[in-house]
Amino acid sequence: MSKYAQLCAHGRGSATLKSISALLAWDQETYMPRGGGDARAEQMALLAGMMHDRTSSKDLGDLIAACESESLDDQQRACVREFRRDYDKQTKLPKSLVEELARTGSKAQDVWKDARKNNDFKAFAPWLSKMVDLSRQKATCYGFEPGGEVYDALLDEYEPNAKARQVESIFKPLGEQLSSLVRELTESGKTPSDAPTKVHAPKDRQHALGMYVLRAIGFDLNAGRLDVTTHPFCEGLAPGDTRLTTRYDERYFPGALYGTMHEAGHGMYEQGLPKCKTHKGPGGDAIESFGTPLADSISLGIHESQSRMWENMVGRGRPFWKWLHKEACDQFAELGKFDVDEIYRAVNIVRPSFIRVEADEGTYNLHVMLRFGIERAMIAGDLSIGDLPGAWNERFKQLLGLDVPDDAHGCLQDVHWSFGLFGYFPTYTLGNLYAAQFWETIRQRMPGLDAEFTRGDFSQLLQWLNQNIHGHGRRYRAGELCEMVTRRPLESRPLLDYLSVKLRDVYGL
Amino acid sequence: MSKYAQLCAHGRGSATLKSISALLAWDQETYMPRGGGDARAEQMALLAGMMHDRTSSKDLGDLIAACESESLDDQQRACVREFRRDYDKQTKLPKSLVEELARTGSKAQDVWKDARKNNDFKAFAPWLSKMVDLSRQKATCYGFEPGGEVYDALLDEYEPNAKARQVESIFKPLGEQLSSLVRELTESGKTPSDAPTKVHAPKDRQHALGMYVLRAIGFDLNAGRLDVTTHPFCEGLAPGDTRLTTRYDERYFPGALYGTMHEAGHGMYEQGLPKCKTHKGPGGDAIESFGTPLADSISLGIHESQSRMWENMVGRGRPFWKWLHKEACDQFAELGKFDVDEIYRAVNIVRPSFIRVEADEGTYNLHVMLRFGIERAMIAGDLSIGDLPGAWNERFKQLLGLDVPDDAHGCLQDVHWSFGLFGYFPTYTLGNLYAAQFWETIRQRMPGLDAEFTRGDFSQLLQWLNQNIHGHGRRYRAGELCEMVTRRPLESRPLLDYLSVKLRDVYGL
Repeated sequence: MSKYAQLCAHGRGSATLKSISALLAWDQETYMPRGGGDARAEQMALLAGMMHDRTSSKDLGDLIAACESESLDDQQRACVREFRRDYDKQTKLPKSLVEELARTGSKAQDVWKDARKNNDFKAFAPWLSKMVDLSRQKATCYGFEPGGEVYDALLDEYEPNAKARQVESIFKPLGEQLSSLVRELTESGKTPSDAPTKVHAPKDRQHALGMYVLRAIGFDLNAGRLDVTTHPFCEGLAPGDTRLTTRYDERYFPGALYGTMHEAGHGMYEQGLPKCKTHKGPGGDAIESFGTPLADSISLGIHESQSRMWENMVGRGRPFWKWLHKEACDQFAELGKFDVDEIYRAVNIVRPSFIRVEADEGTYNLHVMLRFGIERAMIAGDLSIGDLPGAWNERFKQLLGLDVPDDAHGCLQDVHWSFGLFGYFPTYTLGNLYAAQFWETIRQRMPGLDAEFTRGDFSQLLQWLNQNIHGHGRRYRAGELCEMVTRRPLESRPLLDYLSVKLRDVYGL
Repeated sequence: MSKYAQLCAHGRGSATLKSISALLAWDQETYMPRGGGDARAEQMALLAGMMHDRTSSKDLGDLIAACESESLDDQQRACVREFRRDYDKQTKLPKSLVEELARTGSKAQDVWKDARKNNDFKAFAPWLSKMVDLSRQKATCYGFEPGGEVYDALLDEYEPNAKARQVESIFKPLGEQLSSLVRELTESGKTPSDAPTKVHAPKDRQHALGMYVLRAIGFDLNAGRLDVTTHPFCEGLAPGDTRLTTRYDERYFPGALYGTMHEAGHGMYEQGLPKCKTHKGPGGDAIESFGTPLADSISLGIHESQSRMWENMVGRGRPFWKWLHKEACDQFAELGKFDVDEIYRAVNIVRPSFIRVEADEGTYNLHVMLRFGIERAMIAGDLSIGDLPGAWNERFKQLLGLDVPDDAHGCLQDVHWSFGLFGYFPTYTLGNLYAAQFWETIRQRMPGLDAEFTRGDFSQLLQWLNQNIHGHGRRYRAGELCEMVTRRPLESRPLLDYLSVKLRDVYGL
């Protein structure tokens, strides 16, 4: 067996272990009885220990090194490059720092919960301070390119190769123009009625509608399922096994509908990765791709581009509602009072608000940009923790025009920082940017898409995504893939164009 | 840390691995999408390999040996004795035989499925022959006591220390007297009406009733749950996490009701084992019991005694129906036409039939005894495989008075032999025997039980089982426990007395 084949087999073993942990985590959120918590923690710890031993073993390092001097084709070289990336990440942090991050993060998260509930930033501040320090230490261990900044090392964990400066150069014009678009809409006096979103929608009917949509858009239910959890998520659990969750609010059906489509977007990416396929090894032999970077997702940004495309570009579009109108009205009797256009407009209302996770398509990215600027300054040491609330509220007023009433509705709202997720937020907006840029290309290549969606046929879109995005795994970095597919580097224009055209249409401007 | 504490910690690690496999198996039967099958097989194989390495490791053998020469109290000695038993069982079989049993058993099971469907014993015969041979080889590796027989070594896997001859000495009088009791009942002309069992019972109503019963009898739903599968089972998955399954037939509600109570009986045994408790180590230190034999179940027979007691002694009793009548009639409107006595009699009808898993309480043990006699003769070489159908049909006529129409309704009906479960069948009747003997003792000690059941209070019974049966884990062997609790060795009289009194009452004889 070639070293390359051995390396892939090693990866397969690790991926199988990881898939077991993923099932345990899924079960914990869905069906595990409360009393099983302690035992579940033991099970997870056992697997985490095994996983750590495998993925940081000298054997693995030797295999990677051996492959680096083998004669390989482009695809195999990309595969080894990504194995190297993961191994270095895994071995660059001293064990003491990993443990300290886990321990402090766990406590900080508990403190954050109370602090948010009691609107008490002062209680959280010393813990946030610790997490910023530890994250800076982590970044220093990872290192970053000359000319870059500490923050780059953190961003790189979630969005390989992305740099803060480059992200800033896209976010800056986007923020300014989005702010003025939002002002134009909200001051137009033409806000659509939200009555269609408030019809009574029984949970079982919402579930039936969600399943109807999943089947239509092409999420493979023979290789996946949909359950209910407090916090919706998608878990690409194992080859042939991708699980989505959602939650139902009987007085606001778009929450579950778009939540389900969002997770299905992630899910169809997972299902589109070549986990059940093989690729050519150095000797021409067929090598299973599962467990190698060739069957893994590129970055959080690209993952999010898939979820946001199905949720927003598809699901909040007029053709989609032309198709779904009948079925939705069959499920929710009161919806029959509204026509396609009224529903389409109602699910696209733009309204500045304080909480990111409840934000609409027009304001969402402003929430993200705020966080990007602030966390970048905290990591650089340019913003002291004590100044965070003031900086947050000032910037929020600039971007969204609202006065933040308290820190619970401001800088205390998200869990991320409490356990050290610095560099994660920007991937949400990168996802929207990638989605819009892909979407522009897709619209040019497939002029008949609206007509297909109106008939409930989404297959051409999914097929294109499978071929152009999903099928490559981690062979290309996100930026490279974007240029390959759209013939341009990532930029803010496509997202701005998409939002301006659509939202002006919604508001009749 | 004492060697004893190290041994227990080793056991805990293995038990945690095993609990992970158990979740994977549970998920496979309940929620796994079809497409996840191949990946699940990989996950299971990975865990099985790790498990095998751990439980047959030289380290473990050395630890056990070291403990055997430590100064220990009775409880600790029993614990080490059982660790030794498991280790010897694990290491006595050569790897080649284990693999051959798994491989041949898997193929034989496929052949059996078709053979049963096509009523084609000849197709199955050569595979059954192989499985008998391999099982005999396995028994020879395990060994058996002087004066015993090869079959003892197989029986011992499921019912430690039980001997075929002793089982026979109990089964023989039981079989004769049960046969004549069944004849007396069926020829009495007083068979009750089965109309109450045939009322329309919607699945969701059956589920609600099942949950109502689970809560009342004391199955802890904070530490367990109930789901739906094709074949009902109970999985004592991990400390604080015991899962039951059932299935619903809208035209026969007793199937799910008694199936659920049966699995709950297993489940309450699992919940009653001291998995979340500690016991005293040699230095007086507190040692977690989970993963040691002190928190494990004794035998299949004792496990089955718990499921059958709740299903039959409790659930098919008149006091139980006095309590459940109102709730059951609220759930199934048509049941309101029948009074307590009519329902009680309907769920206790005795009617000889061909299929074991559908048999009533009066005839069930006759099915088991038939299999015990036949498999014992096959293993001993006293019955050739070709003669199996004839022997089956002849003995069936003697015991149950019916002419077997074909092998699908005869010797081909059970899956057990196809994958080498020889020695398993008798534990079903041992379970009924233990249940009846425990029950007799319980009735003597708790004269107010009927009144409590009528009020829906089952707590005194559960508490007694917790203390006298569950809490000991594997400290005592089944026979010992029986003598401790009932002051007599296991015998056939209590089961015969229980069935005669109850069934004559049901038939008004």
